[in-house]
Amino acid sequence: MFTVRTRSSDSRARTGTLRLNHGDVRTPAFVPLATKGAVKTLEPRDVAGLGYELILGNTFHLLLAPGPELVGEMGGLHAFMRWDKAIITDSGGFQVFSMGHGGVADEIKGRGRSRAGGPDPDGRTGAILSVAEEGVRFRSYVDGRERFLSPEGSMSVQAALGSDIALVFDECTPFHVSREYTARSMERTHRWLERCLRWHTEHGPPGQAVYGIVQGGVDWELRRLSAAVVASSRADGIAIGGSLGREKAQMHEVVSWTTAELDRLAPDRPRHLLGIGDVDDLIAGVELGIDTFDCALPTRLGRHGVALIPDPAAGWRVDLAKGRWRASREPILEGCACPACSAGFSRSYLHYVLRAGELTALRLLTLHNLWFIARLMDDLRAAVEGDRLAEVAGALRAGVAPGVVV
Amino acid sequence: MFTVRTRSSDSRARTGTLRLNHGDVRTPAFVPLATKGAVKTLEPRDVAGLGYELILGNTFHLLLAPGPELVGEMGGLHAFMRWDKAIITDSGGFQVFSMGHGGVADEIKGRGRSRAGGPDPDGRTGAILSVAEEGVRFRSYVDGRERFLSPEGSMSVQAALGSDIALVFDECTPFHVSREYTARSMERTHRWLERCLRWHTEHGPPGQAVYGIVQGGVDWELRRLSAAVVASSRADGIAIGGSLGREKAQMHEVVSWTTAELDRLAPDRPRHLLGIGDVDDLIAGVELGIDTFDCALPTRLGRHGVALIPDPAAGWRVDLAKGRWRASREPILEGCACPACSAGFSRSYLHYVLRAGELTALRLLTLHNLWFIARLMDDLRAAVEGDRLAEVAGALRAGVAPGVVV
Repeated sequence: MFTVRTRSSDSRARTGTLRLNHGDVRTPAFVPLATKGAVKTLEPRDVAGLGYELILGNTFHLLLAPGPELVGEMGGLHAFMRWDKAIITDSGGFQVFSMGHGGVADEIKGRGRSRAGGPDPDGRTGAILSVAEEGVRFRSYVDGRERFLSPEGSMSVQAALGSDIALVFDECTPFHVSREYTARSMERTHRWLERCLRWHTEHGPPGQAVYGIVQGGVDWELRRLSAAVVASSRADGIAIGGSLGREKAQMHEVVSWTTAELDRLAPDRPRHLLGIGDVDDLIAGVELGIDTFDCALPTRLGRHGVALIPDPAAGWRVDLAKGRWRASREPILEGCACPACSAGFSRSYLHYVLRAGELTALRLLTLHNLWFIARLMDDLRAAVEGDRLAEVAGALRAGVAPGVVV
Repeated sequence: MFTVRTRSSDSRARTGTLRLNHGDVRTPAFVPLATKGAVKTLEPRDVAGLGYELILGNTFHLLLAPGPELVGEMGGLHAFMRWDKAIITDSGGFQVFSMGHGGVADEIKGRGRSRAGGPDPDGRTGAILSVAEEGVRFRSYVDGRERFLSPEGSMSVQAALGSDIALVFDECTPFHVSREYTARSMERTHRWLERCLRWHTEHGPPGQAVYGIVQGGVDWELRRLSAAVVASSRADGIAIGGSLGREKAQMHEVVSWTTAELDRLAPDRPRHLLGIGDVDDLIAGVELGIDTFDCALPTRLGRHGVALIPDPAAGWRVDLAKGRWRASREPILEGCACPACSAGFSRSYLHYVLRAGELTALRLLTLHNLWFIARLMDDLRAAVEGDRLAEVAGALRAGVAPGVVV
């Protein structure tokens, strides 16, 4: 289901094509989130129009509402949400364990300290009731009912959703736990991987690919071991999950350990990096041989008034809600061909409509951010194809706009 | 600036063309609201794509934020919000007086009793400080500052906005006041009309049309008098405002009195009915010789999960948030070519995304509702052109879908 097309001569980067039930996906690719069956503020035709071929739906959220039975009855997630290109579904592990550890998302992805007991990434409070070998018992944020998710349960939900790529159910460990805890948790994830694959062999929908998940926290030995276990499994692809460290440098290191091992053991299988989507991390991830990335960042930033721009010193971001843009005639990004910039909206207007609470503003920034990331990935693909990734990555890191450098 | 194209042989209905600074508007037409400089959830290209040639911006809200100076500096409202077709601006009278009377919007438009002290139509609380011959002093809901709006002030804001049609500043009286109060208020509105026209003659932007506003509450004599006063003024067009009664029958009667008088005194001037947009009211309004209508209803209903459908018995509405649509495979409306229905979204999906709080849902319902109203107006225009309004109105009132009957 995956063909490597070209390999970079001076890095681990490669381009390829994922051949999925709902069409081909050219990689490296960014995967926008349709967590609850909609890319927030957009219609499917918008997402396709931006150039995306793969989006991510979430098993945890879709399990709780509207439920896999209903989605199945409606012909699967593609038919239900009117998206006819490919879908990858997250297994729900990350969300279930986020609840348990209390808003663990930021910590896992190296964005700061854990907020114990805090809300889950979508601002809902949830509660984990028990974690056992069999699975996880938790309370639904939708209706307060007790629910249970197991490896087999997650796979069966993903079968009902009919995604093109299913992810195995994993135990997702935060950064602050001990090496022993991480090791035990990783071993459970490996056992769960086998249970997921077994279930899928018997009951999985035809053509649905399954990705295993490499865990092991920030420990070199554990990551290598986990990579070896997943590589030796029948998983069609390999995702990298769990705690990637406290900061970016450590995250890049953990990813590098893993892809180095995968290059040795499973060079032709596709690799997905879970939950990473900062501009610099996408560039680094491609250099390290990642094929696909998913992240809430571009869409979530947009809904918070933050637009992506080629300004590395500013973290590739501009906060349009800030007063300094009140009278700015500038577009978000000069020369940008996204629906917001090409229509001529000024920072002044966007600042105003953001402050006024107009939903149109959230849509315009979402469109811009997803356009920006799509063009960035276009550039990175073209760079690998032309074997000039170092040059192109250098230019992007120096603040050249996507679409200009290639 | 207005040409009557055809007149119905058996009603007061007519078709016409408004020739405005930013293009022609075929009438009868519905005018979507861009209250704060954006049609909520949509981009300008969406609104144009639905077939609309005229939208309404609001002087009161745009005065408070971002302010006419900024909009003027940015080249006017068209350039600021990236809408190159025509704009009509409300004078702010309705909003200012809504604050004073406490959520008067519903009452003025015959939708129930006044909620004394309640929020204004946009859910903000405001406070009127004084009403005098000179103008109205009130407290801004944006920053709590004391502000003042007068006839000249309103016209100068509308000049800075650069709208194609400006409305004069009127005192907007609710239903529950005495005839004497309504009469005194109406007389003040007539004096303010003259002040607005005087200011506009000296300072108004070239080509900006000005509409006077007929007041007079639900009193036959006052409405006739007010229609005569506005008809005898230099106003380019005539809007019908103020209290239109406690219920629909009374509203139709008040409109009928007014347009009968206008047919006699100003048959060739365009007429706008302020704040009315129920499907049956649009049909009745066209029969009574109204040329343009504005209303928050189609867009606001959409944001509350309610879709317009050709079901008169259900008030032309279906509430998709209701549990009965949980597993419905039906589209909002069979055969509808709107962006939501033609993309194949089921009521089940829309129900789910509404409940899930997805902004995509609000956009899809807004698109459907504005499409529905645009096609309704297409049908009514074609019916008048073909002199078969009675037949077409009858079919629409019997529940035939717009686009099918003509």
